[in-house]
Amino acid sequence: MRNILTRYRYPALTFFASASSASRTRALPLITTTTTTTTNNNLTKIDKHPRTFKMTIHKTQEPHITAITELSPQSSKWITLQQIHYVDQTGKPRLWEVAARKTRSTPTASSAGGIDAVAMCNILLHPRRPPSTILVIQYRPPMDAYTVEWPAGLIDQGETPEQAAVREFKEETGYDCVVKGVSPIQAADPGLSNTNMVMATVEVNLKEEDEDPLEGKLPEQKTEVGEHIERVVVPMAELYERLVEYSKKERHVVAAKLFHFAMGMHFATTERYGVFGKRE
Amino acid sequence: MRNILTRYRYPALTFFASASSASRTRALPLITTTTTTTTNNNLTKIDKHPRTFKMTIHKTQEPHITAITELSPQSSKWITLQQIHYVDQTGKPRLWEVAARKTRSTPTASSAGGIDAVAMCNILLHPRRPPSTILVIQYRPPMDAYTVEWPAGLIDQGETPEQAAVREFKEETGYDCVVKGVSPIQAADPGLSNTNMVMATVEVNLKEEDEDPLEGKLPEQKTEVGEHIERVVVPMAELYERLVEYSKKERHVVAAKLFHFAMGMHFATTERYGVFGKRE
Repeated sequence: MRNILTRYRYPALTFFASASSASRTRALPLITTTTTTTTNNNLTKIDKHPRTFKMTIHKTQEPHITAITELSPQSSKWITLQQIHYVDQTGKPRLWEVAARKTRSTPTASSAGGIDAVAMCNILLHPRRPPSTILVIQYRPPMDAYTVEWPAGLIDQGETPEQAAVREFKEETGYDCVVKGVSPIQAADPGLSNTNMVMATVEVNLKEEDEDPLEGKLPEQKTEVGEHIERVVVPMAELYERLVEYSKKERHVVAAKLFHFAMGMHFATTERYGVFGKRE
Repeated sequence: MRNILTRYRYPALTFFASASSASRTRALPLITTTTTTTTNNNLTKIDKHPRTFKMTIHKTQEPHITAITELSPQSSKWITLQQIHYVDQTGKPRLWEVAARKTRSTPTASSAGGIDAVAMCNILLHPRRPPSTILVIQYRPPMDAYTVEWPAGLIDQGETPEQAAVREFKEETGYDCVVKGVSPIQAADPGLSNTNMVMATVEVNLKEEDEDPLEGKLPEQKTEVGEHIERVVVPMAELYERLVEYSKKERHVVAAKLFHFAMGMHFATTERYGVFGKRE
């Protein structure tokens, strides 16, 4: 993984343009990093995986960092830097540095009880297709890379995690979903930040006549201005292998929570250790 | 989950003292939050789970936060606050706030290639016991709670992830382990920080004559001064249920990566969706 402080030439991604026909594609020139904005909207990106699918993205150039500046906790909007003064188990006073979100209200002010975010473990059920999941790929400035994640978002003031899950899922994927369950609260990165989250398990129940998401036929997203979120649909049974493939792609990184879920699935199904009584 | 800014009275945890005999226990007074240091070392804590086991911890009081102060990026040692100036996919200049680790060297300066941390998915194999895993529970000031995690640590300068995994695992658990594999690089919390990590899968191969970790008979830890890490051993097949239980415990929170792994195992084995061809 590249450090965000590293400057490098941006890898060439291969793009194809589609004149609103999924079958007719023509090669575009490789995208180079300039500050000139070209306006090839409605580009269709072809994934190199054997199970080829197509995604509509609106991208005219590779995003890139122009500067990194230090920020004071007073002038930041989203995150602050704090020193925690605490007394440890033996009575000794100690210090710990923490990155804290400014967006979280006090636990009682929000109906979500002080939960920052919700991520959606989602299952797309289509009569003709294996159970699949929709992942989102977006440029994340902190990593200076495209991250592969489950749809997720911050819980708004007054929202329940379930409401935030339905709203964010619609915004990022275009699908209406049904929440089947919400996990206990989890610590996102407890050595570094106070951020926490829950995972909602959501279902998208498609009918025979609905278009096939595994063919890349997805509803329109409701993303906000400035959000450029690519969607990929992956059969659940292939999730682990697909994430390993994404990790090998230039300038791509998989988010740890999604990867750990997939690793857990892989661990349980390969059963090298006979954990569930079926040692191989 | 409590916000770290919340002050509250500390919940009473029940502790029992053991005079080096696992069977003989006597109740201690409930621990109250004072700054007086008492010196009841070698306390043994009894977990309330049906599969009772005992842990040796050196704890004399509940840790607690005394103050939270703002920290400037200049005076922090571990974390800094940065503003990333970047140009997005459409050519528009944008800003993003990020919490960045100061401890990561440039990608090429470290043999680990700019990886912050390694976590250990660990399997304890004992001839008389089901495959189990060892979890660590420690007070994490950013959460003001006890977090349940897999052993993990920052990769030192010049170390490979494998070397860091063996070293940190020995320090936190007391066990020597064998690294069976290392995951691709994962983004720890890519919307908030530049932190990344890998997961090492490690085995502890115990012999018939070795003491039974599921009975709480664990080797001595090599923790640093100020580290107070409780260890619990859980059969892998029970991991998900045990984490759900821990999430219900007062002032405890499970780390998202560990929880997601367990959720992935649970998802794969309950098979509600017939992902692996065995719909129930």
